[in-house]
Amino acid sequence: MSSTASVPDAHHGPAITDFKLKNGMQVVVIPDRRTPVVTHMVWYKNGSADDPVGKSGIAHFLEHLMFKGTTKHPQGEFSNVVTELGGQENAFTSMDYTAYFQRVAKEHLGTMMEFEADRMTGLVLSDDVVNPERDVVLEERRMRTDTDPSAQLGEAVAASLFAHHPYGTPIIGWMHEIEGLNREDALNYYRRFYTPENAILIVAGDVEPDEVRALAEKTYGAIPARGEAPQRQRPQEPPIRAARLVSLADPKVEQPTLQRAWHAPSYTTAKPGEAEALELGMQILGAPSTGRLHRTLVMDKRVAVAAGAWYQSTAVDRSRLMIYAVPMPGITLDQLGRDVDAVIKAVAVEGVSDAELRRAKTRLIADAVYAQDSQSMLARMYGSALATGSSITDVQEWPHRVEAVTAEQVREAIRDWLGAPGAVTGYLLKEEAA
Amino acid sequence: MSSTASVPDAHHGPAITDFKLKNGMQVVVIPDRRTPVVTHMVWYKNGSADDPVGKSGIAHFLEHLMFKGTTKHPQGEFSNVVTELGGQENAFTSMDYTAYFQRVAKEHLGTMMEFEADRMTGLVLSDDVVNPERDVVLEERRMRTDTDPSAQLGEAVAASLFAHHPYGTPIIGWMHEIEGLNREDALNYYRRFYTPENAILIVAGDVEPDEVRALAEKTYGAIPARGEAPQRQRPQEPPIRAARLVSLADPKVEQPTLQRAWHAPSYTTAKPGEAEALELGMQILGAPSTGRLHRTLVMDKRVAVAAGAWYQSTAVDRSRLMIYAVPMPGITLDQLGRDVDAVIKAVAVEGVSDAELRRAKTRLIADAVYAQDSQSMLARMYGSALATGSSITDVQEWPHRVEAVTAEQVREAIRDWLGAPGAVTGYLLKEEAA
Repeated sequence: MSSTASVPDAHHGPAITDFKLKNGMQVVVIPDRRTPVVTHMVWYKNGSADDPVGKSGIAHFLEHLMFKGTTKHPQGEFSNVVTELGGQENAFTSMDYTAYFQRVAKEHLGTMMEFEADRMTGLVLSDDVVNPERDVVLEERRMRTDTDPSAQLGEAVAASLFAHHPYGTPIIGWMHEIEGLNREDALNYYRRFYTPENAILIVAGDVEPDEVRALAEKTYGAIPARGEAPQRQRPQEPPIRAARLVSLADPKVEQPTLQRAWHAPSYTTAKPGEAEALELGMQILGAPSTGRLHRTLVMDKRVAVAAGAWYQSTAVDRSRLMIYAVPMPGITLDQLGRDVDAVIKAVAVEGVSDAELRRAKTRLIADAVYAQDSQSMLARMYGSALATGSSITDVQEWPHRVEAVTAEQVREAIRDWLGAPGAVTGYLLKEEAA
Repeated sequence: MSSTASVPDAHHGPAITDFKLKNGMQVVVIPDRRTPVVTHMVWYKNGSADDPVGKSGIAHFLEHLMFKGTTKHPQGEFSNVVTELGGQENAFTSMDYTAYFQRVAKEHLGTMMEFEADRMTGLVLSDDVVNPERDVVLEERRMRTDTDPSAQLGEAVAASLFAHHPYGTPIIGWMHEIEGLNREDALNYYRRFYTPENAILIVAGDVEPDEVRALAEKTYGAIPARGEAPQRQRPQEPPIRAARLVSLADPKVEQPTLQRAWHAPSYTTAKPGEAEALELGMQILGAPSTGRLHRTLVMDKRVAVAAGAWYQSTAVDRSRLMIYAVPMPGITLDQLGRDVDAVIKAVAVEGVSDAELRRAKTRLIADAVYAQDSQSMLARMYGSALATGSSITDVQEWPHRVEAVTAEQVREAIRDWLGAPGAVTGYLLKEEAA
């Protein structure tokens, strides 16, 4: 067990500089001088939950298409340059944002900015590149989801938990809607969301803020302002009191699994301290080896071979909590579910001990600090927070807010959210012979 | 039991006349000369499933607001005239259409047309009438749904069965979205959908087609064409293989109830003969007293006090089938569900007898014929069919298509749709004392 003393001091994060370009683009510079390397990321404040109705998957599809070349740089040139410079690049789409990044020696930062700024407005798409890429995405979906019962169940659980809000729609999209996506859809989406007002530039590395500012003004700063940022338009979830059980039985299932999911506030929607209390509560319940679920279900009662918890705390809208458990042979998911409920109820009714709370705080803060040891994780931490509505100060003061959470706040958060009606339970079952 | 001979001859329906006005409005005249009365209906091809995202309930809310007066006729005048003439009026909103009707002595048909045509374009809305009416709708929702566990469960089952398609959203809308509806939303929706190209006029009664045509041209015909009909824009449901169980326990529940729902083709989406085969299969399963569910569960096994089936066959998109059963005291819903499944499986595997099929056809056709004995039911039958994509010929030839269904087609339809993965089960339970 870590003690407090062993935790790196996270209470004073790196000295961040942030400013806006004249066209509204936000710029964040995170000093990290350990190696002569920079991480260059552009985050757009739109993700799969901003896909227009009937066009699910367009955010992710466009992410693929962003590598297809511009008026100035034909397909492949940007990636080739990154490779020749010994760098790395990638991109990802989440429910709330889409981001592009490169990691290169610091002297190439300006080159990365030129290319990235160029593809914010210069993307060229023809049916000849769009249609084959759509086949790539369809195949990606087939491989990852449609042949994997666990992924299928996950989609069905999410669709039940968010019956109205687009968090219920998979990031990659529904197959029948991906099939209908075309060049026009991609360009409409691109023109709507890929604007300087909607973008955040994050540069982490051995760079001076003034140097980043000069380069950013020359590259991104040359993009004309649109006047205002695009609006996210998302229906919100109604309160549904009914409990829901989603079951999938498939011969391919090796290990039956129970999952249970609840709505939960995100850092963006929570009352002060509530999300931090939930993070701590989910640590106390779900931490590997030491969490209550593991100790009670795996070690004491021997009804599970594994158990844990997950909280999607970084999100624009109300989000989700999830607990999972894998039963010991001979234990039904129904029995296991009752044991899971008893573990939750004990926290909701009797609360947590001071020692547990201390350990959870230590672990949570330490995890965040260790993550910052990776330059790209550091950049992602700020990028995801800013793209979902938090501020740099929110990120920097987070360890203080975690420290301030009381045992009673943890009990209340677990009681209010994991005790709420309307949970969605998922059963992954091995299909028995007919 | 009826024999075929006792069934009224439905194979030659009334001699319908239909035509279009120059502005695109469809007119259907159904002769019914038994009394000197007419039923005058205007159907708009938009319902709750066409509500814009985040504006659920707007179709239904606008239906309320359509009684708030126009430039020419202040609020209450239309209704007062109907009352003074000894007539009746009403309106209703479904998932796929919205309709307004009056029933008056035939000499007043022209007056009804003047008023109804006037409010197709002349509606006047101020915040003073919109805001109090929204409170009326909110109260309607509170009374009908939010205090009724059975209605809450129904909403949750529908939301699970249609996680993506708007058939999962209640017609009245979600509370938090109704609260946000305003004058602007109502007018935008009105201007988009209340157009002659989107409307169907149905007149049933003791009238001549030429007389209706002359009156319609003078009233509705004076409305300028918009050029084209508005498009319905609806995301379609992905195939979800996982089975879903939605449970609601509440102290107010008197009778526990099991329901099970499946996707099913509507008359508009089905392969030829498929919807007719499903109608017959659902009759054979669910008919009161004689259906297999009643005979097996209520009479033979004595595990249920009631059981039945329902098929929403008239719909624009893929629709739903539902079976319900109320258990005998001491029988769990889980047990009852297995008994329901066994009844379905017997039909899916062994099929139905010729006698059952004959009885189901007789009953189905007779029900339709008896419904036509009511002038307003007759008008509604054509209106709902036309508003969801069927033709007059489809309605008229329906008895022939039902007659043509074979026992094997019934077996296949039940096997394919009630045997499909992804059913949604609803449990309404009496909450036990804690």
